[in-house]
Amino acid sequence: MANQVQTVGELGEARVLAAILDRIGSSTAIVGPGDDAAVLDAASGRIVATVDTLVHGPDFRLAWSSGYDLGWKSAAVNLADIAAMGARPTALLVALTLPDETPLSLVTAMADGLRDACAALAPGCAVQGGDLAVSPTLTIAVTALGVLDGVEPVRRSGARPGDIVALAGDVGRAAAGLTLLFGRFRDAAGTPIPVEATALSEVEAHAVAAQLRPAPPIVLGPAAARAGATAMMDVSDGLALDASRLAAASGVAVDFDASALGADPVAALAGGEDHALLATFRPATALPVGFRRIGAVRAAAGAGVLVDGRPYDDGAGWDPYRGWDAAQG
Amino acid sequence: MANQVQTVGELGEARVLAAILDRIGSSTAIVGPGDDAAVLDAASGRIVATVDTLVHGPDFRLAWSSGYDLGWKSAAVNLADIAAMGARPTALLVALTLPDETPLSLVTAMADGLRDACAALAPGCAVQGGDLAVSPTLTIAVTALGVLDGVEPVRRSGARPGDIVALAGDVGRAAAGLTLLFGRFRDAAGTPIPVEATALSEVEAHAVAAQLRPAPPIVLGPAAARAGATAMMDVSDGLALDASRLAAASGVAVDFDASALGADPVAALAGGEDHALLATFRPATALPVGFRRIGAVRAAAGAGVLVDGRPYDDGAGWDPYRGWDAAQG
Repeated sequence: MANQVQTVGELGEARVLAAILDRIGSSTAIVGPGDDAAVLDAASGRIVATVDTLVHGPDFRLAWSSGYDLGWKSAAVNLADIAAMGARPTALLVALTLPDETPLSLVTAMADGLRDACAALAPGCAVQGGDLAVSPTLTIAVTALGVLDGVEPVRRSGARPGDIVALAGDVGRAAAGLTLLFGRFRDAAGTPIPVEATALSEVEAHAVAAQLRPAPPIVLGPAAARAGATAMMDVSDGLALDASRLAAASGVAVDFDASALGADPVAALAGGEDHALLATFRPATALPVGFRRIGAVRAAAGAGVLVDGRPYDDGAGWDPYRGWDAAQG
Repeated sequence: MANQVQTVGELGEARVLAAILDRIGSSTAIVGPGDDAAVLDAASGRIVATVDTLVHGPDFRLAWSSGYDLGWKSAAVNLADIAAMGARPTALLVALTLPDETPLSLVTAMADGLRDACAALAPGCAVQGGDLAVSPTLTIAVTALGVLDGVEPVRRSGARPGDIVALAGDVGRAAAGLTLLFGRFRDAAGTPIPVEATALSEVEAHAVAAQLRPAPPIVLGPAAARAGATAMMDVSDGLALDASRLAAASGVAVDFDASALGADPVAALAGGEDHALLATFRPATALPVGFRRIGAVRAAAGAGVLVDGRPYDDGAGWDPYRGWDAAQG
């Protein structure tokens, strides 16, 4: 009857924290974890900062996401917001709220995922601080900080008529993965069940991986800034919806070439959670390697998003307070 | 039968966000809310960063805390961590997780509390970014950022034998307020009920206010750094427990003068949530106005915390994974 699973409630904060710091590795910050606050280098004189939270239920299900996946994804989505300003991520602060019954192994796997996502996507960036709190609901709030290395921040508002519209990274793959998970890995009552890897084709496995462990092209954010990107954002809520935000901020229209959006343009326009980088460049710009042209900026004329010159509006996109119901996840 | 309460679930993210930004006021950051990330000035070349989460249930109860209180407190506790490094707070990022049924009025009141706490405690600091997510549990995760203005960060590890131990701000008052709330404002089943202000004496009302809206002496953090503080931290988990952490980090003992701890030294040693600043200074230092001497640093000899030269260990202090049960709050 012995229960071999060590829970965070049994262990207490100090031991959970020690286990996490053990995974994170030694800090290269001026002051790393262990004091009231971290002290970080910002020699360029400006810092870029963002925060995003993943919530158990609306944002992930433990039947589908491992602790490693959660750590990875919570890092990746925030690194993408830093990259989308043209900045290089330098540090993460991670605030976890954990039910008492959370196994320590889930928490240490999250630490592994955070560490590995930083190493793979944003070398030099690492977890430099955080907070542990007890809660009925498992959440991961990650603050990402970055530096501009001498370039100006790339905002959403700088696109001008005639600019090239370009994309780095996937769109639609992570959304296809989510559709697969909901379609194939729930029981008769609709409850998520573990993913059987052998039940997936190679393409399907890639889609599921893109949903659970997105790999946005973080290093291409600063590359776009150096190349003179006029506007940029990461695609988190859907290519069409996010492009409409960039278009509104810039007072322009974004006109996509359907032929540049792959085999399924509708899926590409709806897909978001891959966290691709959407950027605009002056027409004469040589696009940085990794970006591909997918359209052009037009003078605004009502519709913010066009496809092959025609207004596009499918109403798709993710609103955290409207898109979620517990059954659909 | 018309329900006049507007909930965040009905309104959707964009309108909730607009209502919050309306309260926060216009941003003075290089890039404020509305883009992928905020861009902040860090002309001194170093940035100080911390995060702390308040969770409904373990950390607050809506019967006792108004939205304004929650916004205020979530700012204050994080500003204190920045101040405890000797830094001046410059920006907050606020990640809210909200149940769908949360009234918009609670959220806008939180925004008011965040704004007013910054204005009162850390002029020049403001909310510069954030995130909204839906969750079964209401949480407020605040990241605070600050700058050092040319001083070195004051760590926990710099106290040396012979140093003065000094305190700025209250200890014990917020804890007394919590005891009052649990003692007087619960129904027969132990469920929190609203605070009746007329049932409280002036002293009691101050204690409850200290618990719900702590007012740490934020500006005294940088003042202590300029005066040459050798170590500093904010008192969040109890004066004795936090002093034991400073003592351990510095490899010394902290010896409190009981006579300097007010009418109830035991309450003072156990009290934490006022977020006073505990600092050490070389013996010849003229303490900055607002700090008072409460003891001296001794060479370590086993016990990390002494009172009038005798080892002190009551085992008190707050561990988020051990201190909470749902009935006690």
